[in-house]
Amino acid sequence: MANIAIVGATGLVGKTMLEALENYDIKIDNLILYASEKSAGKKISFKGKSHTVRALNTDIDETLDYALFSAGSYVSKTYAPKFREKGIKVIDNSSAFRQDKTIPLIVPEVNGEALKHSSLIANPNCSTIQAMLPLHVIKKLYGITHIQYVTLQAVSGAGYQGLEGLKHYDAFTDEHAIKDNVIPKIDVFDDEYNAYEEVKMIQESKKILNDQSINVSATCIRVPVSHAHGVNITVQTKQKPDLNILNETLKSFQGITFYEHPTYPTPQDARGQDDVLVGRLRYDKSKENSIHLWTVADNIKKGAATNAVQILKQLMEENHETI
Amino acid sequence: MANIAIVGATGLVGKTMLEALENYDIKIDNLILYASEKSAGKKISFKGKSHTVRALNTDIDETLDYALFSAGSYVSKTYAPKFREKGIKVIDNSSAFRQDKTIPLIVPEVNGEALKHSSLIANPNCSTIQAMLPLHVIKKLYGITHIQYVTLQAVSGAGYQGLEGLKHYDAFTDEHAIKDNVIPKIDVFDDEYNAYEEVKMIQESKKILNDQSINVSATCIRVPVSHAHGVNITVQTKQKPDLNILNETLKSFQGITFYEHPTYPTPQDARGQDDVLVGRLRYDKSKENSIHLWTVADNIKKGAATNAVQILKQLMEENHETI
Repeated sequence: MANIAIVGATGLVGKTMLEALENYDIKIDNLILYASEKSAGKKISFKGKSHTVRALNTDIDETLDYALFSAGSYVSKTYAPKFREKGIKVIDNSSAFRQDKTIPLIVPEVNGEALKHSSLIANPNCSTIQAMLPLHVIKKLYGITHIQYVTLQAVSGAGYQGLEGLKHYDAFTDEHAIKDNVIPKIDVFDDEYNAYEEVKMIQESKKILNDQSINVSATCIRVPVSHAHGVNITVQTKQKPDLNILNETLKSFQGITFYEHPTYPTPQDARGQDDVLVGRLRYDKSKENSIHLWTVADNIKKGAATNAVQILKQLMEENHETI
Repeated sequence: MANIAIVGATGLVGKTMLEALENYDIKIDNLILYASEKSAGKKISFKGKSHTVRALNTDIDETLDYALFSAGSYVSKTYAPKFREKGIKVIDNSSAFRQDKTIPLIVPEVNGEALKHSSLIANPNCSTIQAMLPLHVIKKLYGITHIQYVTLQAVSGAGYQGLEGLKHYDAFTDEHAIKDNVIPKIDVFDDEYNAYEEVKMIQESKKILNDQSINVSATCIRVPVSHAHGVNITVQTKQKPDLNILNETLKSFQGITFYEHPTYPTPQDARGQDDVLVGRLRYDKSKENSIHLWTVADNIKKGAATNAVQILKQLMEENHETI
């Protein structure tokens, strides 16, 4: 049993974290829901009990054991240190701490062992999380020298506001609408005109796979789809890959639902699922030791809320909490 | 002046060919419109004059000089030879003859010189056409060793029926809907589980760029967008590429509208345009001599009808027809 807070409880990820707490049967003593001033006083029901949303301010409840943050980088940077000071362990869904070398960046099926009783854990980028599961399997079997991502990302990655974008031709990113369109830019450009979503995928992949020598490239594209991201992955391996072995290994890996040829997964298949769906595994004959694969996952669930709650569950087990 | 036929005149590409004939101011003596039996008798207006659609059968009008085919591979395989026997030059939009070594496969801005008075010319695949323009420029400047495509293709690539798919959750490909979804498979799978659209892009790129030593890989994905395909291209060059030089060269290349950073093109920008829109040109730092770029083009116009009519125009000029 533990006292748990959700920071950003009224957002799309925050609400899905509540569902995940219930689905993963996390035993909660006291649940505290934080959001912005303007959401304070709202009622949110959890396991049949009504909870009043509190405004996040410096008056942090000291009885808390864990806090799941999903209210953007600014809120995380401002409040996560204050929570830690009070001995509250934080799992942060923002990008605020992901590149901090002292903070673990965790996909439980992949590098759960890196948790090590940390008091602040970063939840990776949505597209990165789903790619990590099959890439971890491939790395274990054959080693990896190069990864190329092209993502097709759902609008819910931009929250409730993103979902609104599917309904009209108003600008979604820069001057571009997303309705009946695709937008090849997610987040802001850096000095070399990589979009920050691409930079995140490159940096986070190396950190989670724990190998800075892997070369990674990414192009991230928003598509007019409500929920679930698709990622096309091309991976070059150190040793010659064997698709029969890889098929079998992926099929039995915890957290992956593998689609054997000629079936393949689409975003519709991934919605509401906690698993990462993997398919279209085939040799890339244009390069030596190269394979293509395609993953889809619910970006709000495994791409955010589910992964955070899986981290929480592991952390509670490490701390011998009853869960 | 010439007598011109469109075979498949009632289809989406056929109708757009008529518009392109008008836009490119092709001087037509006599226009004959062919379609299937069930469309025979329909009236189609061209330059203010009504034309009655004829059923395609062995009774081919011998006065014809040129025929633009867009009625699928079966019709092309069956009828193109019969048209040629009567001395009618054929420009074929299907995949029927694209891999025939004796038949030129033409993007006029790229390899127009390969036309050489042919009596049968193949119009390439829609996604391939748009990629060829910038890749031709890159190849001229730096040479190319490897190309990787990931396409995001509009539903109009599947004709009027494809556009219907955006409206409901009925199956579009296999058991998958395209509304609020993406489908990572276009056309049938081959024995190695490459989709045939991917195979077409690989084979056609080598043929048009006239270099079988270039290694090419492709993943083709259908997205819930009405018109205009996007193609993410990663290309490795023989010599070290210079983006400043490449920017300037692409900007001035006939048939390309170049988007300088921080602007970038989307499908909405490409609709109704004959040009290929190119943007997001940047170094791919994960590999030596590698760059990323993004192209969009109206798949029915430059990806099909416009390119066919541009071929026709060049053919008529070669034959000293008044156009």
